[in-house]
Amino acid sequence: MSVAAFDHPILSGLVGDDAFAVLFSVAAELAAILRFEVALAEAEADEGLIPAEAALAIAKGLPRFKPDIPGLKSGVARDGVLIPALLDQLRRQLGPESGPHLHFGATSQDPIDTGLALRLVEAIDLIGARLDELSAALDDLERRDGATPVMAHTRMQAAIPVTAARKIASWREPLLRHRARLDIVRKSVAVLTLGGAAGTLDKLGDRGQAVAARLAKKLGLNLVSHARHSERDGVADFASFLSLVTGSLGKMGQDVALMAQNEIGEIQLSGGGGSSAMPHKQNPVKAEILVTLARFNATLLSGMHQALVHENERSGAAWTLEWMLLPQMVVATGAALRIATELAATISFAARKA
Amino acid sequence: MSVAAFDHPILSGLVGDDAFAVLFSVAAELAAILRFEVALAEAEADEGLIPAEAALAIAKGLPRFKPDIPGLKSGVARDGVLIPALLDQLRRQLGPESGPHLHFGATSQDPIDTGLALRLVEAIDLIGARLDELSAALDDLERRDGATPVMAHTRMQAAIPVTAARKIASWREPLLRHRARLDIVRKSVAVLTLGGAAGTLDKLGDRGQAVAARLAKKLGLNLVSHARHSERDGVADFASFLSLVTGSLGKMGQDVALMAQNEIGEIQLSGGGGSSAMPHKQNPVKAEILVTLARFNATLLSGMHQALVHENERSGAAWTLEWMLLPQMVVATGAALRIATELAATISFAARKA
Amino acid sequence: MSVAAFDHPILSGLVGDDAFAVLFSVAAELAAILRFEVALAEAEADEGLIPAEAALAIAKGLPRFKPDIPGLKSGVARDGVLIPALLDQLRRQLGPESGPHLHFGATSQDPIDTGLALRLVEAIDLIGARLDELSAALDDLERRDGATPVMAHTRMQAAIPVTAARKIASWREPLLRHRARLDIVRKSVAVLTLGGAAGTLDKLGDRGQAVAARLAKKLGLNLVSHARHSERDGVADFASFLSLVTGSLGKMGQDVALMAQNEIGEIQLSGGGGSSAMPHKQNPVKAEILVTLARFNATLLSGMHQALVHENERSGAAWTLEWMLLPQMVVATGAALRIATELAATISFAARKA
Amino acid sequence: MSVAAFDHPILSGLVGDDAFAVLFSVAAELAAILRFEVALAEAEADEGLIPAEAALAIAKGLPRFKPDIPGLKSGVARDGVLIPALLDQLRRQLGPESGPHLHFGATSQDPIDTGLALRLVEAIDLIGARLDELSAALDDLERRDGATPVMAHTRMQAAIPVTAARKIASWREPLLRHRARLDIVRKSVAVLTLGGAAGTLDKLGDRGQAVAARLAKKLGLNLVSHARHSERDGVADFASFLSLVTGSLGKMGQDVALMAQNEIGEIQLSGGGGSSAMPHKQNPVKAEILVTLARFNATLLSGMHQALVHENERSGAAWTLEWMLLPQMVVATGAALRIATELAATISFAARKA
Repeated sequence: MSVAAFDHPILSGLVGDDAFAVLFSVAAELAAILRFEVALAEAEADEGLIPAEAALAIAKGLPRFKPDIPGLKSGVARDGVLIPALLDQLRRQLGPESGPHLHFGATSQDPIDTGLALRLVEAIDLIGARLDELSAALDDLERRDGATPVMAHTRMQAAIPVTAARKIASWREPLLRHRARLDIVRKSVAVLTLGGAAGTLDKLGDRGQAVAARLAKKLGLNLVSHARHSERDGVADFASFLSLVTGSLGKMGQDVALMAQNEIGEIQLSGGGGSSAMPHKQNPVKAEILVTLARFNATLLSGMHQALVHENERSGAAWTLEWMLLPQMVVATGAALRIATELAATISFAARKA
Repeated sequence: MSVAAFDHPILSGLVGDDAFAVLFSVAAELAAILRFEVALAEAEADEGLIPAEAALAIAKGLPRFKPDIPGLKSGVARDGVLIPALLDQLRRQLGPESGPHLHFGATSQDPIDTGLALRLVEAIDLIGARLDELSAALDDLERRDGATPVMAHTRMQAAIPVTAARKIASWREPLLRHRARLDIVRKSVAVLTLGGAAGTLDKLGDRGQAVAARLAKKLGLNLVSHARHSERDGVADFASFLSLVTGSLGKMGQDVALMAQNEIGEIQLSGGGGSSAMPHKQNPVKAEILVTLARFNATLLSGMHQALVHENERSGAAWTLEWMLLPQMVVATGAALRIATELAATISFAARKA
Repeated sequence: MSVAAFDHPILSGLVGDDAFAVLFSVAAELAAILRFEVALAEAEADEGLIPAEAALAIAKGLPRFKPDIPGLKSGVARDGVLIPALLDQLRRQLGPESGPHLHFGATSQDPIDTGLALRLVEAIDLIGARLDELSAALDDLERRDGATPVMAHTRMQAAIPVTAARKIASWREPLLRHRARLDIVRKSVAVLTLGGAAGTLDKLGDRGQAVAARLAKKLGLNLVSHARHSERDGVADFASFLSLVTGSLGKMGQDVALMAQNEIGEIQLSGGGGSSAMPHKQNPVKAEILVTLARFNATLLSGMHQALVHENERSGAAWTLEWMLLPQMVVATGAALRIATELAATISFAARKA
Repeated sequence: MSVAAFDHPILSGLVGDDAFAVLFSVAAELAAILRFEVALAEAEADEGLIPAEAALAIAKGLPRFKPDIPGLKSGVARDGVLIPALLDQLRRQLGPESGPHLHFGATSQDPIDTGLALRLVEAIDLIGARLDELSAALDDLERRDGATPVMAHTRMQAAIPVTAARKIASWREPLLRHRARLDIVRKSVAVLTLGGAAGTLDKLGDRGQAVAARLAKKLGLNLVSHARHSERDGVADFASFLSLVTGSLGKMGQDVALMAQNEIGEIQLSGGGGSSAMPHKQNPVKAEILVTLARFNATLLSGMHQALVHENERSGAAWTLEWMLLPQMVVATGAALRIATELAATISFAARKA
């Protein structure tokens, strides 16, 4: 289906980004969950909680798993989360020897949130790389055109002349701040979730934290004092970060669209925007889409913060809301970074019309 | 791709709805656009603006069109809208005789907005049918359990006893109001958009309104005084309507989740919500999802109203934002109506625990 | 205090509106509540539920009431709603004869929601008058400058010339639609709330609907089948309406700001916007504020729809959220209408620079 | 006026906070602006840009300034910002000798944004103190009741027993994370804004950065490479931080309201919530308000991120939107912290009903 523009075979060319979207494919999602389950079994075997043979069988078996997607779809409709149906399918494949040892002591939220963390880490690294590319493209732009005089505008009125370099600096500086903060964001997102039914790892006896420590190490995630099942500040703050990035790029897009107005002509576009009615036009499509993606993320951000009101030990309502919002915010951010880099590479500052 | 839950092969089982999602498939979208283009050509031939043979060739040729999707995808990335690339493909197929007469005098926004209107009308009719089904299911529930005494709760504290019928009435009455308003909503959505480059139908000479009148009639849409290219109150108000529906259902879901708490037990669920850690549990999944979908639409609604600030005769930034939000709001509404009906059919009010 | 710009002794000059703000003064709020309580006592006396002497004493006494505001403030902090503390003060004044008959059978939400309805009706009538004034100002503008040629812009690029009249029409038409809908909005807002503790008027025996009918008539409000304590679609839809109005005006403001750019100069401002650094500038302040108010209401609208998820028979959390949002949305709308009318009266379309 | 609940003489008792609200009084705002102007004059005199006598006269004169508030109100309506009218009033008082040297080389945004930063720093320090108090109150609560067994609930259904300590930890841990991050937030908010008309300090010649360095030191703010007039990530990120805090407290409030349900009775309240219809009730008012304030901030946050799309060197539209949103978010956060501390001090965990 293609309800969302990001998943639309045509519109995704305008607002989407394949490198980010692939992180939210079913294949990537299931792979991350299975990675959690294998590593959990190994960690539990290491701590003597399940037989070593079971862990071995799980580690061998899961990579060969072929999901029954319609079965998972009806499972999630029934259970609210795909894990019960997935475990049924996995256990049926593993057989009665090792099957019962799968997912021992864990709850659905453990593989789901950990699986998401594993993929968000990839997204964060990719965002870092794209922020670097974009900064470099803006540096290039400054080298090319930085000395060009342009008119500063305040409150939509011409103020006094500045150089293009000043304009470019106001686009780049926020990005450098976002880049500098990325490590902190990464740390709070790259967190292991392992809590069991009520976040207390009750079934693991006194081995809970030991298992968690081994699991975190295997998965390259941070170990925390307890599962943050109901503490959603990590993802909500990540969503804020994403919206800061797209908002900063939206400002750049807005500036470009304004400066590229025919009557102003301080920025020249190349390679953009045909029209079905007026073939001569050159529309600032990339600049506009930066504004769109900024407003899109600013909109969705509100829902991610509404989801902080996460009742009790696990809220189906609030948790599902995150699933509906966060992946789109990530892809919007990735797309905006790519588009901004393309834009920086293709615009040129022109001497202002007399 | 499956960035959005509605497009996700698994999660769409939880929050999606196929009958609504199909309205936003590429096939449905292109079909609606082609329907516009055929009817436009016929209307223009009727008014003597293009040759009758061209209109005939267009009417015959377009239904056989096989889109080159990758071509449209790169086209939309370049042009911001898929129409220029689509027209290229269509004209190449039609050939030099009739091709140039296709889309005569129209602009991209004309087939896009009209094509959307044609599909939203289907969505509205489906919403009407589902509102009726849900009201009927609530009537049934009242007949079954209306006399059961339940405790009213204000500010999360027990107040005084009422009957289940009073509770059910507070769920049904808003739906009846929404149902009554649906005709008004339909009227403002089911509107023809035909304006040409700047909304003035400049290329159609003095035949503009005559063509529009014929076209509206052919498509079963309302004729208005001029194209509402930059007047977005129709879709923004429709988005508000959708959020009112899901909000009302979210209230019902919240009530059910609260009354189904083990410690309260005034509502009994059937057929829901297993848990991977606690197989004995019966989770109120459908009730939770109604809350989720309400908060989702309340979130996205803000962006649809931000898009009212639509600069000049056509804003790429604001218009694209609508594309990213409205289809998801429609599907969320359809899903919520279906889920609420399933919920109404499967819950029962139980005598309150002593 | 002046936390909100609307209440700020200086900033309210920019974004506020006294005629609307006064509806949300403590005096207006208490007056509306007392009007409810007097009319309720009279209606209940008419139905024989309380002594006629008590109703008379209440009708005489309440208009002389001097509230102890600090007492109400600490009362609301304790009770979540000001009514219990207000009733204490009122009953102390009325004395033991009539005091106990005050507010008989009602709950806090009854006077609060009815008192709000009484004031929102005034707001709606004022909005209607301002919509008319603005339409007239736009008609005047069209008469003055409608024939002036201006350039249409699509996607921020010059398209083809149109007349100012076309531009003005795209501002006025949505307002006419909003005006036409105002009666429907009024009907769903001007509703009596009388439900008692759990919305069932349990203390009024078989006289409940009779009292409600008399009360509705006295207050000039619509009688509905039962109190809509937990059905918030009326106010949520009103909030949507407000945001549609400000959004339409934001579009007008955005257009004016763009057309008044020095480099475009298609609109000339008078009487606006000095700058502390550049005294020669003429900033399009009113146009900008229309955009601000549009985005403000589009933002707050989301919270009004979140508040539709109103748990049980009365949600303190959701209801209080309405109190924090709706008055500001009303004043923002009133201010935007006034500012837009001032703008329409002071701009002129100028021949485009060559 | 009392359009906003925070400014309402009664409702501010429920949702407001005087210690925070006072930071947004006109007196505090003007004082901060005058502090900027005095320090600027001194810094400019130190750098030889204005006469030392002028700086002395400004330093002596401004503390005695009595603003003409109606004059400022009409000034802001005309200019969009209060600085031009304020400078007029100040210069009239200072006289022709020193008056012209006031505000030399600065633009309106410089004192406004710097004045805001000075007050936000106070708010941040107060937030830090309140976070500490609340953590201590939660520590106390854990000492009192931590060992009490309570039922964990997932998806609104009873799961397995845990201790109250686990519950309390899930409330406290996010607050500790917010506390740890406060220094970073403070650093990005406590920033000097000094840019002049177009952010380039053009009138200060080669002394621009030297003046800025002196000024930053005098005001205790951070010096940055250039004025961030159009780079709004600092305030937008601060808004996100505020919403993270209130969201975390909203989760605590939601939990308390759920656990305090009569039918569950795992938390007992003291001193709350009377009802006009049911005097026996004890409503969880403070807990509800925490949910309200969380959803309020989550709503307004969206607008603060919309304002990141700040066109050109200064956007009147986007900047004004910040003024309408941020102060309310700050006060909501202060209020939520105070209320949560009161709540933590007055609830007790009770043994679960059998």
